[in-house]
Amino acid sequence: MPMTLEQLAQRIGAQVQGDPSVTVNRCAGLEDAGPDDVSFLANRKYVKRVADSQAGAVIVSADDAKLIENHNLLVAADPYFAFREAVVALHGYRQHPKPIPDGQHQAPRFIDPTATVGPDCTLYPMVYIAAGAKIGARCVIYPNCFIGPNAVVGDDCQLFPNVTVYDGCVLGNRVTLHAGCVIGQDGFGYATHEGQHDKIPQVGNAVLEDDIELGACCVVDRATVGSTRIGKGSKFSDLVAIGHGASIGRHNLLVAQVGVAGSSQTGDYVVMGGQVGVAGHLKIGDGARIAAKAGVTSNLAGGEEYGGQPAMPWKQARRSWLSIGKLPEMTQELRALQKRVTELEAQLASETQVRP
Amino acid sequence: MPMTLEQLAQRIGAQVQGDPSVTVNRCAGLEDAGPDDVSFLANRKYVKRVADSQAGAVIVSADDAKLIENHNLLVAADPYFAFREAVVALHGYRQHPKPIPDGQHQAPRFIDPTATVGPDCTLYPMVYIAAGAKIGARCVIYPNCFIGPNAVVGDDCQLFPNVTVYDGCVLGNRVTLHAGCVIGQDGFGYATHEGQHDKIPQVGNAVLEDDIELGACCVVDRATVGSTRIGKGSKFSDLVAIGHGASIGRHNLLVAQVGVAGSSQTGDYVVMGGQVGVAGHLKIGDGARIAAKAGVTSNLAGGEEYGGQPAMPWKQARRSWLSIGKLPEMTQELRALQKRVTELEAQLASETQVRP
Amino acid sequence: MPMTLEQLAQRIGAQVQGDPSVTVNRCAGLEDAGPDDVSFLANRKYVKRVADSQAGAVIVSADDAKLIENHNLLVAADPYFAFREAVVALHGYRQHPKPIPDGQHQAPRFIDPTATVGPDCTLYPMVYIAAGAKIGARCVIYPNCFIGPNAVVGDDCQLFPNVTVYDGCVLGNRVTLHAGCVIGQDGFGYATHEGQHDKIPQVGNAVLEDDIELGACCVVDRATVGSTRIGKGSKFSDLVAIGHGASIGRHNLLVAQVGVAGSSQTGDYVVMGGQVGVAGHLKIGDGARIAAKAGVTSNLAGGEEYGGQPAMPWKQARRSWLSIGKLPEMTQELRALQKRVTELEAQLASETQVRP
Repeated sequence: MPMTLEQLAQRIGAQVQGDPSVTVNRCAGLEDAGPDDVSFLANRKYVKRVADSQAGAVIVSADDAKLIENHNLLVAADPYFAFREAVVALHGYRQHPKPIPDGQHQAPRFIDPTATVGPDCTLYPMVYIAAGAKIGARCVIYPNCFIGPNAVVGDDCQLFPNVTVYDGCVLGNRVTLHAGCVIGQDGFGYATHEGQHDKIPQVGNAVLEDDIELGACCVVDRATVGSTRIGKGSKFSDLVAIGHGASIGRHNLLVAQVGVAGSSQTGDYVVMGGQVGVAGHLKIGDGARIAAKAGVTSNLAGGEEYGGQPAMPWKQARRSWLSIGKLPEMTQELRALQKRVTELEAQLASETQVRP
Repeated sequence: MPMTLEQLAQRIGAQVQGDPSVTVNRCAGLEDAGPDDVSFLANRKYVKRVADSQAGAVIVSADDAKLIENHNLLVAADPYFAFREAVVALHGYRQHPKPIPDGQHQAPRFIDPTATVGPDCTLYPMVYIAAGAKIGARCVIYPNCFIGPNAVVGDDCQLFPNVTVYDGCVLGNRVTLHAGCVIGQDGFGYATHEGQHDKIPQVGNAVLEDDIELGACCVVDRATVGSTRIGKGSKFSDLVAIGHGASIGRHNLLVAQVGVAGSSQTGDYVVMGGQVGVAGHLKIGDGARIAAKAGVTSNLAGGEEYGGQPAMPWKQARRSWLSIGKLPEMTQELRALQKRVTELEAQLASETQVRP
Repeated sequence: MPMTLEQLAQRIGAQVQGDPSVTVNRCAGLEDAGPDDVSFLANRKYVKRVADSQAGAVIVSADDAKLIENHNLLVAADPYFAFREAVVALHGYRQHPKPIPDGQHQAPRFIDPTATVGPDCTLYPMVYIAAGAKIGARCVIYPNCFIGPNAVVGDDCQLFPNVTVYDGCVLGNRVTLHAGCVIGQDGFGYATHEGQHDKIPQVGNAVLEDDIELGACCVVDRATVGSTRIGKGSKFSDLVAIGHGASIGRHNLLVAQVGVAGSSQTGDYVVMGGQVGVAGHLKIGDGARIAAKAGVTSNLAGGEEYGGQPAMPWKQARRSWLSIGKLPEMTQELRALQKRVTELEAQLASETQVRP
């Protein structure tokens, strides 16, 4: 769907600087973009690359625009969001092709007669909807998904292939689960007794609120009792693990391979970098930002940045790392000082002796 | 199934302190529990919450019971195990609903004619049992599970959806694999030769002994030759990776996202916290406890606690962390001392000079 | 397929030291091997185990052979590669049994009429090949695999059960994906705007070049625009996550649970140990070797070894760890020195006083 820069600017809330009649029909990175593509400048340090780019237009901030000459620009208050709007305008969201009608192939799906499926759903062959499950309207459920007994899936959900939703778990509206996600497996609960780990039946469930998206192979334990909960609007990248009884707040961003242990709670707008681990039974405040690979072992206040293992305020973590780098030098200084003191002691002793 | 506190106490091996005629029918956390629920006190520091709890009864230790007034209690020697017994008594284990009979739907399963399936199994639609595979009695195998050629599954196993068991692998009795687990994929074995990594066929298998439970998306490599082995009674949380030829002892507890590299061996009753990594070809003794995120790079003796990267005895790891935190302060002290020594040196030099 | 040591030596490029008429028919580890087995010596420190081994023959280097008496040996320039060749000679590669013909069972597969499938493929029941997908020649695709719309799979690929290839993604020739792998799920791209994280449609794809093998449950994000790319000949172990727009070079080796964030690039022959994390938008040079658990936060030059969090040259990382271990001792030395200086100051002050 080609658009002129004028049309696109209007759509994404930007101003054209340059020729508004140029047409673009695709989004691309600065280095790959050609004359039909719109790109964007993510970071001022790459501003010189704009001049070399073949892009039909580049989305930039007003400040960055001042540094660029002779290039069609779309100037936006929030260039990253404007780029997002351009992707939506020019490419749209993924279209889920309808599978060919049932009469024309032999591959079945299994929908238990006691399950209910809302209007306008696309259920691919080889999905399994168990007894008592409820699927809302306009859902897309890909092959080899399993929706367990009495599970609830809201409206407008997208479940990619090989997703498992265990019995009694609940997904809100507009929840997207990428391939291989598992929701509601038993939590890691055992009581060790006479030398064996006796399983505690995990009789709670897992609840995902509205507008959640989980990357590939994310796993969310069901609670022992009550619910493991993921708050509205939160997004996970791939291979994230959430322990039983944990509660993730609203609008959290959890990058790949994060693990949050059982019963821990995060506030709203918490961000965790890749491979962060959070121990169990902790509280993390609203807006805390935790650097990749940090190991959280105590409660963290909101609104701050943290890093390190164990996690500490980011500035302190950074200072510690710098100090560690200087340790060998510091050891040498200490040795030199010891030598000087020994010499002083010897000198003073000899003086004391020679005096009458 | 409501029970009086008297009945429940008898069942779980506890004494009632309060009104034995009160009935409960569910387990719940202290804060969520209502008058029909039984809860438990996990940690003495929360003892004050018992007074505020609406729970019909709370399971506590004898020592904690002395601190609580005016609340129905079930006093047990091991409250966590007693709570586990209460969950079993009031909720029971997960019931696997029988799928509707084959004649009443079109969704098939595939069972190779040379495979054998023991009595009283529940095989859901869309399972695939390959040639020569043997399934024991009373197994439950959910949709989209694949049991490879000549694989063996013991009695009373539960395989949740999307589990893959590769050719020739062996599961003992009472093995539970949660959704997405993969048993017996090829180990990471390549011989680098003339610039390419030539695959070493992985002709061993993976063996899981009895009474094992693995969380969602755990993966266990097959051995190059011989067997990768998981010992009886061991339990993993989610997303755990076990390398080829590794041997995990009996009754180990491995928390989420642990990785154990090839050919390493653990003793019995080893515990690893979340995201622990163990390098290859190491031995870890019986009863070793390894803190979350530790990186094990050498053999570890049994019966001890370890932590850190590289992993060291826990006390030493803790002392190192404390020291790192004090480094900036220590640097300042060293600077101050250097200054004092310089002054002393100057003073002594001038004195020596002035003396005749 | 039994072979004499003479035959095997010729096949794997080794010399027999001992009796060339001995026959072997299997490969095994040193400790498990019996008289019909050939084994190999991986590390000189285990050379004494050769004498105790029941193996029919042991593959060793010429240098190690000098240390061993009275045992049949196969002396090879590269013993590990020779062992690999022996596994291939005696065991061969995995045979994929043909499923029983379609007419003899009810379990279907779904192949969209607009998809194309090359000659001599083995498509198991319960695979799903979507509209416009292209499968090359001689591929083996196990049950519950999903090949998305317009995806391309080259020749001689092996897809184990429960693999998902998203729409428009491309696999080269001889690509092996172990069970549970996910290729091309949406990257982690959101523009935060007015308090919510608005999804950026991920309109790129993921491309895996020739001769790639991925362990169980590896996940490769599709790019926002353009392609996420894995270079020819690279091999991953299990549970590896590759972010959107990343580019992994040729012949990389990534051990289990590695995560590479979006837009980062690695050169050729890069090796990463288990649980390594690489932050986004970084470049790692050819032949860099990164120790397990390292956290890469800046560009790394090629040809070097790195370790630590944040990652630094390996020697520096090692020296820092040693220094940290000595910190408590160093603190004591500083305290002792402070005391000595205080005494010197006092002594000097009193001397100055007493002198006339």
